[in-house]
Amino acid sequence: MPDAATAGAILTIDLQALASNYGLIRAQARGAECAASIKADAYGLGVERVAETLAEAGCRTFFVAQLDEGTALRRQLPSAEIHVLNGVPPGTERLFAEHRLIPVLNSLGDIATWAEFGRANGARFAADVHVDTGMSRLGLPADEIEAVSADPGQLADIEVALVMSHLACADEPDHPLNRRQLEAFRAARAALPMGRASLANSSGVFLGSDYHFDMVRAGAALYGIAPVPDQLNAMAQVVRLQGRILQVRLVDSSQTVGYGASHRVTRRTQIATVAVGYGDGFPRSAGNSAVAVLGDVRVPIVGRVSMDLLTIDVSDAPGAMARVGALVDLIGPHNPLDEVARDACTIGYEVLTRLGPRYHRVYLGRGRDKA
Amino acid sequence: MPDAATAGAILTIDLQALASNYGLIRAQARGAECAASIKADAYGLGVERVAETLAEAGCRTFFVAQLDEGTALRRQLPSAEIHVLNGVPPGTERLFAEHRLIPVLNSLGDIATWAEFGRANGARFAADVHVDTGMSRLGLPADEIEAVSADPGQLADIEVALVMSHLACADEPDHPLNRRQLEAFRAARAALPMGRASLANSSGVFLGSDYHFDMVRAGAALYGIAPVPDQLNAMAQVVRLQGRILQVRLVDSSQTVGYGASHRVTRRTQIATVAVGYGDGFPRSAGNSAVAVLGDVRVPIVGRVSMDLLTIDVSDAPGAMARVGALVDLIGPHNPLDEVARDACTIGYEVLTRLGPRYHRVYLGRGRDKA
Repeated sequence: MPDAATAGAILTIDLQALASNYGLIRAQARGAECAASIKADAYGLGVERVAETLAEAGCRTFFVAQLDEGTALRRQLPSAEIHVLNGVPPGTERLFAEHRLIPVLNSLGDIATWAEFGRANGARFAADVHVDTGMSRLGLPADEIEAVSADPGQLADIEVALVMSHLACADEPDHPLNRRQLEAFRAARAALPMGRASLANSSGVFLGSDYHFDMVRAGAALYGIAPVPDQLNAMAQVVRLQGRILQVRLVDSSQTVGYGASHRVTRRTQIATVAVGYGDGFPRSAGNSAVAVLGDVRVPIVGRVSMDLLTIDVSDAPGAMARVGALVDLIGPHNPLDEVARDACTIGYEVLTRLGPRYHRVYLGRGRDKA
Repeated sequence: MPDAATAGAILTIDLQALASNYGLIRAQARGAECAASIKADAYGLGVERVAETLAEAGCRTFFVAQLDEGTALRRQLPSAEIHVLNGVPPGTERLFAEHRLIPVLNSLGDIATWAEFGRANGARFAADVHVDTGMSRLGLPADEIEAVSADPGQLADIEVALVMSHLACADEPDHPLNRRQLEAFRAARAALPMGRASLANSSGVFLGSDYHFDMVRAGAALYGIAPVPDQLNAMAQVVRLQGRILQVRLVDSSQTVGYGASHRVTRRTQIATVAVGYGDGFPRSAGNSAVAVLGDVRVPIVGRVSMDLLTIDVSDAPGAMARVGALVDLIGPHNPLDEVARDACTIGYEVLTRLGPRYHRVYLGRGRDKA
């Protein structure tokens, strides 16, 4: 990791904010267990520190996407309940059992495989049954739910931990699919009454208690993303990304900035070049669109974002601030994650998962600030 | 790294193709030295294997963006010439010298810092002088070029390796800025005749020998990106990305697929869910836009790309191929990198630099295939 004093960019991750977000979601879930989704390296924030923080905040149940993520987490948290969303690839059953990982079974084939593994070992291993209620992505479709309901012996050799589903439009509270998915999940739950029930992701928690069931699975909102995009964001900001100014130039003739000559300077302008690019995971689509902040002055990104650099118009910033070596907020208090993501035509989730390895990372909070 | 048999995706990097591309660009450069840009982990492909391959293919000079990339490369290639594009952050001069890294000096301030460091150590250390000819990003603007030309003593304590600049629109051969940058570079070169001269990136090599000078700096084209986007791509494809099908479902009623219910099924359709998402670096903007390939059948990505999964319409593929466990090309012979990037509204460079750590990686070629 590059040194803080000379790094091209500093990524600060506020673990206290993360813990506070966990508390807020848990309170909102009103008695349902609040599990945490920490797949994809905890949305890019570093799964070890995130898992440690959430465990200290009282989280006992975690969701990851893949087997490897599960085994790594098991080494860190010996007693946590760990669910693996992408199912159990044939041949990996023993690894799941050894590491006490709970696979999410998405099809009749998955169910048969896991039941057979239990029978062969004279044991009932835990697993979740995922029913599809409208994502059309993973999970049992309606006819397979019926088939299991009609022949529940298929589950006899499985310790069903959860019957679960996933919402497609939870971040749009008025979307009619939410209510349809809720009804479909209730029907599936009536057909498959074993284990506990879980439907809501972060945004689903804020759809109301109808959606909470026994367990909610918090993800994006833990990391500061607004659960309801059009409303005031109650979540604390977890991420700050500061880029370092490498050079400042005065442009007082008509000329263009960056690749493709996509930005033309039309007035006397100060351009600062910052040591962050899409090679660091900062979205290329932020070029000529998103806004950086220097102190509290908004300084637009002008020209295309290139691999290792981007350029900002600092004409409106005091000269003493727009200097070589200064740090500029690419994500910060005045330009939070969701705003940057929107300006870059994407969502905060994608911005987070792309945070790259070239940043100097600082973790704040939990009583012991350390790099 | 996940196991090949069960990984959600396999990323294959063809080192023979990389070496062949290096040979092609070097031939095109007609006697100018052909250096290689391997910044950002060699555009995401793994800098160790890429550097080793290029060194074996005869490359002696490498460009990276940052100090840390330079020191890591020095450990691997003790005798290579290594240039660091983002300059020398104050306080790091000694590290540059210790590792024999050549900083690119972008301003009069950089020049003064490096010259002072030389004087303090009674030595002339190598560095490049970067002149800006139209990127407005890094490098000396015209007035600073004049100032150095009028007072060349500023460079007396520096061993100037290169006088260099960078093209903004080299991938658009007819763009008028190319010729203007060439003329500006010639003028700068006349003013600063020390060291060798370098202007062209990959695409610049294909603008003709006027642009070659003493050294060209190949980047994107090494990795298979077309140097001239609208023409037949002569570069060999280096990257293949295959995702594994986790589930196949028949949808025979009107329903939607994925987040935001953005894709509506209107005919009897087979939807396959693939274990790759934007959390793996595959662009979210490929949703409802890019095309995957199963065997040689084009199967469009339908619905939004989610963090760990994407969905494809495999209705047109033979049933025996669209099965759980099968691999589908997300980037491959029939849907090469540039096409996927275009469909995702970005460029191949960004797709490459986002290739994530969750893939099983296979390196082919150089006479010893190994994982």
